[in-house]
Amino acid sequence: MKLFRFGAIGEEKPGICIDEKMYDVSSYVQDYNESFFEKDGLSTLAQALKDGNVALTEIPAGVRIASCVARPSKIVCIGLNFADHARETGAEIPKEPIIFFKSTTALSGPNDDVIIPKNSVKTDWEVELAFVISKKAQYVEEENAMDYVAGYCLHNDLSEREFQLERGGNWSKGKGCDTFAPLGPFLVTKDEIEDVNNLKMWLNVNDKQFQVSNTDQLIFKIPTLVSYLSQFMTLLPGDVISTGTPHGVGLGFKPPIYLKEGDVMELGIDGLGTQKQKAVNYSK
Amino acid sequence: MKLFRFGAIGEEKPGICIDEKMYDVSSYVQDYNESFFEKDGLSTLAQALKDGNVALTEIPAGVRIASCVARPSKIVCIGLNFADHARETGAEIPKEPIIFFKSTTALSGPNDDVIIPKNSVKTDWEVELAFVISKKAQYVEEENAMDYVAGYCLHNDLSEREFQLERGGNWSKGKGCDTFAPLGPFLVTKDEIEDVNNLKMWLNVNDKQFQVSNTDQLIFKIPTLVSYLSQFMTLLPGDVISTGTPHGVGLGFKPPIYLKEGDVMELGIDGLGTQKQKAVNYSK
Repeated sequence: MKLFRFGAIGEEKPGICIDEKMYDVSSYVQDYNESFFEKDGLSTLAQALKDGNVALTEIPAGVRIASCVARPSKIVCIGLNFADHARETGAEIPKEPIIFFKSTTALSGPNDDVIIPKNSVKTDWEVELAFVISKKAQYVEEENAMDYVAGYCLHNDLSEREFQLERGGNWSKGKGCDTFAPLGPFLVTKDEIEDVNNLKMWLNVNDKQFQVSNTDQLIFKIPTLVSYLSQFMTLLPGDVISTGTPHGVGLGFKPPIYLKEGDVMELGIDGLGTQKQKAVNYSK
Repeated sequence: MKLFRFGAIGEEKPGICIDEKMYDVSSYVQDYNESFFEKDGLSTLAQALKDGNVALTEIPAGVRIASCVARPSKIVCIGLNFADHARETGAEIPKEPIIFFKSTTALSGPNDDVIIPKNSVKTDWEVELAFVISKKAQYVEEENAMDYVAGYCLHNDLSEREFQLERGGNWSKGKGCDTFAPLGPFLVTKDEIEDVNNLKMWLNVNDKQFQVSNTDQLIFKIPTLVSYLSQFMTLLPGDVISTGTPHGVGLGFKPPIYLKEGDVMELGIDGLGTQKQKAVNYSK
């Protein structure tokens, strides 16, 4: 299944994409949130669709597409998980996964404007493969880890490099600004993706390609990440884990290239859809 | 007011402490969660109590006391915010606040057992003053910052030092294990505390005092922290911010002293109550 959410901010409803048509399923499902995944809502929804028990109404054209899952208990990101990206930032290849948190208030729709924060001069892009946790995960073994994965989605892990790297302490300062986590358009369930370790990923800014790689380049793959993270904390249904970005971020250029108002990012991963965001300055 | 929560894990109810008696207010308030703070539940509850509109039933003796607030959108902690603690860990005094996240699944009752994680040999204590956010905070000025604070509570910021410091990446790996955030017993509203910058804080292990200090030693105080954090991320009603620990953690001793099964921690801050936890090994 390809799940998505739509509607105005704060009023999002769940939908499903079938044969490239977008349907509202809010009469059957309340939201794609912790409770939905916890109660095995994915299986129930799949069965109900098969049995013809879900009223499917097409969504109006032009409606806002939201983050593909509701606000999770946490967004955990993996740092430097592509060797070429580690090299471009001047960092060593990690011996075990590097993790950091993104404030869940950063969650945003895949095509929403990205707000360059007040006092920011180093806002940067990062195309990433994210996945969503399907059930409570504690001390999971790698061989069972995929049982804890609901599906995959596209994530632009926006990063303010000065906040992240020059303001003391850890990376979370530059990762959790509002709109810094466009997620979606779709949560694509595992069965729809033949090989999650062989998906092309790319990101353009103003029609110029900056990032292009493949998930086969991930140093630590999804089962390793689920198992590893679950040694340090409990992962909850609906939690989002983002696996890291390849070479080609703004920080890696000499001199670096950062987003300015009006810049347009487009990004995609095979089978997971595309995103398009305009960068705008913070204003209030 | 002194708010608390009580009952079995997953079935917690809100309560209020008046003249050292503990009352159930679940007939009036659903929970002390994001929605409660967002809708100015504190003022409404205070008024209703004043008007005699809340049915007060004493809670049964021996009932479990839970975390004083429901699971928040985030727990943000401040690192090295006492000069003497920075020195004992060998770190420099920070020029601006150091921040890290604790997985919200770490939340625990003030007297619940603390679970030493699987494969842990360096589980350590940290008595801290925490505060709870009352309303959505974005780009807050320091002079208005206290308007965004609901009240204060006691927090034991448990830390696994190997996970935190020797496993690559940032501190969050050693901060978010289950039961690593005992919070409470009370959320004490601002009006009850005469001077939050002059509260004695202490922590004993097996009746021996390890930490003793005062909140007057905080390098960055609450208004600075609210303002600072709100430049990097949106703080939501009910979010928990923990302000850092003083000198006397296990890591600071030569050789270091870490928790082992059966050890008992007791800790307190003037006006905010006390906690008592027994350390137990993870078992399943």
